[in-house]
Amino acid sequence: MTPTITEIRAAAERIRPYAHRTPVMTCASLNEQVGAQVFFKCENLQKVGAFKFRGACNAVFSLSDADAARGVVAHSSGNHAQALALAARLRGVPAYIVMPSNAPAVKKAAVAGYGGRITFCEPTLAARESTQAQVIAETGATEVHPYNNERVIAGQGSAALELLQDVPDLDVIMAPVGGGGLLSGTAIAATELSTRIRVIGAEPEMADDAYRSLAAGEIQPSVSPRTIADGLLTQLGTLTFPILRERVEQIVTVSEAGIIAAMKFVWERAKIVIEPSAAVPVAVLWERKIDLRGLRVGIILSGGNVDLDRLPWQER
Amino acid sequence: MTPTITEIRAAAERIRPYAHRTPVMTCASLNEQVGAQVFFKCENLQKVGAFKFRGACNAVFSLSDADAARGVVAHSSGNHAQALALAARLRGVPAYIVMPSNAPAVKKAAVAGYGGRITFCEPTLAARESTQAQVIAETGATEVHPYNNERVIAGQGSAALELLQDVPDLDVIMAPVGGGGLLSGTAIAATELSTRIRVIGAEPEMADDAYRSLAAGEIQPSVSPRTIADGLLTQLGTLTFPILRERVEQIVTVSEAGIIAAMKFVWERAKIVIEPSAAVPVAVLWERKIDLRGLRVGIILSGGNVDLDRLPWQER
Repeated sequence: MTPTITEIRAAAERIRPYAHRTPVMTCASLNEQVGAQVFFKCENLQKVGAFKFRGACNAVFSLSDADAARGVVAHSSGNHAQALALAARLRGVPAYIVMPSNAPAVKKAAVAGYGGRITFCEPTLAARESTQAQVIAETGATEVHPYNNERVIAGQGSAALELLQDVPDLDVIMAPVGGGGLLSGTAIAATELSTRIRVIGAEPEMADDAYRSLAAGEIQPSVSPRTIADGLLTQLGTLTFPILRERVEQIVTVSEAGIIAAMKFVWERAKIVIEPSAAVPVAVLWERKIDLRGLRVGIILSGGNVDLDRLPWQER
Repeated sequence: MTPTITEIRAAAERIRPYAHRTPVMTCASLNEQVGAQVFFKCENLQKVGAFKFRGACNAVFSLSDADAARGVVAHSSGNHAQALALAARLRGVPAYIVMPSNAPAVKKAAVAGYGGRITFCEPTLAARESTQAQVIAETGATEVHPYNNERVIAGQGSAALELLQDVPDLDVIMAPVGGGGLLSGTAIAATELSTRIRVIGAEPEMADDAYRSLAAGEIQPSVSPRTIADGLLTQLGTLTFPILRERVEQIVTVSEAGIIAAMKFVWERAKIVIEPSAAVPVAVLWERKIDLRGLRVGIILSGGNVDLDRLPWQER
């Protein structure tokens, strides 16, 4: 089922005690550079450093006490794993996280730091899914999919809801698209709250499956994506694809060089740390891929989790 | 003359149309790490990326129309130069900036970008002062010293004023100390607004002239300071020294390693870009140089201007 604006409002209320109401920031030099008025919804400043906490938190706190007591489970080595672990800890229930054995040590440590119970498996999708099924069989835990989940989508939509409460008269709202959870929630919130707003998804050229999916009219696989925007590697889900198809004006793809340049500019001038995935919609403006001059553009900055010892502009 | 709290309030009003009211941020993982409740006043998010804009703006907008029309002048290659150039541009008057010919190209470009009229000179204090005197003789411009100036000190104090409006019940307030303008303004605002607050200055061990000055009871020179905190190289002024002596509880010095570790932690966990000088008071908590456990500690994050291609944790 597609979540409604009512469910997004309910999600915002439900997560309010636990999540940050993140600030909306502007940057005069960026506006000058791109010729638009840009409003950043700073989910890099969200708990666990990413919007993922909203969806995970809404899912965990939507469970009945009996279901919650048996815990939640996901296979993920990214921000969703940390988000789910923290949300479960806040509710006082276990989070079982299935991670590939070759996941970076820093990600394992982060999940463990939030109290997640990690089960390692071979680094294949089949192994992740079978290991997760085994955890569910043993514990009765509820799966919380990182994006193909109605409660998760509703939670992610609360960021756009807040942004539009703070800046109601946006012409455009943009978010990056990987599995489509954030963009789906953003699109529902934006199109229900404004009749004129344009919803645009931003995607790396090197991982353009959402662009191809909307063009083809059916979900296209993400084949060997090679982008620095490592939060956007997955393909759309059965729940997110129809939402994007109905409510998103277009998906715009950007180059790797554009992502890196936009990311560095935001660090340098807006003085905030954003991850490459968050820079993807900024790169749409940076590369002037479509004409947004003179418009009021909201951007969901999806997260700020980066390895400060390996910055992209230093690797080239 | 020492500025009063009335002058700090007036400065806050005067600069309000031009300066950002910067946000106050908290970071749960930092609080856990240091055992205190830390409130960051984010002057890294201020115009030109530093608190310096407050003082420069207050000085420029305090001038009579006749004086302002002749322009303002300073010798500086740092944040003050950019701040003064922008403040002057906002008032529509010239800013004459005397810079050593060997200043980094990026700093020259930044000042020029804000419309500053640069005069280059030899990289000695004598040359800077004589060049400035010549500019004044030719133009009638008013000198705006980066810290030994009453209007500048009052402007810098507006950051602490705002912080204490947002978080009135602080136990401690900390700011870095170079020439002492920020710490003086902070100390006046804090001690006038709270009878119990403790004002602490933070300084690199490698540039500990303020520490030595308070110990000796007279201004000690800053001799060959070699610290990564390049905003804190100067010595105290005749105006700032007596203010610190009267209102600052103590100056605490920190190591270079502590500054770098604190800076990296803030980037990683608070997701904001701060410059080494801004990390100096954070390092006081990080290195546990004094016992602040359990206290509510306000920190003025002085700025966020760094060269992203040369980060300190990568040079070692």
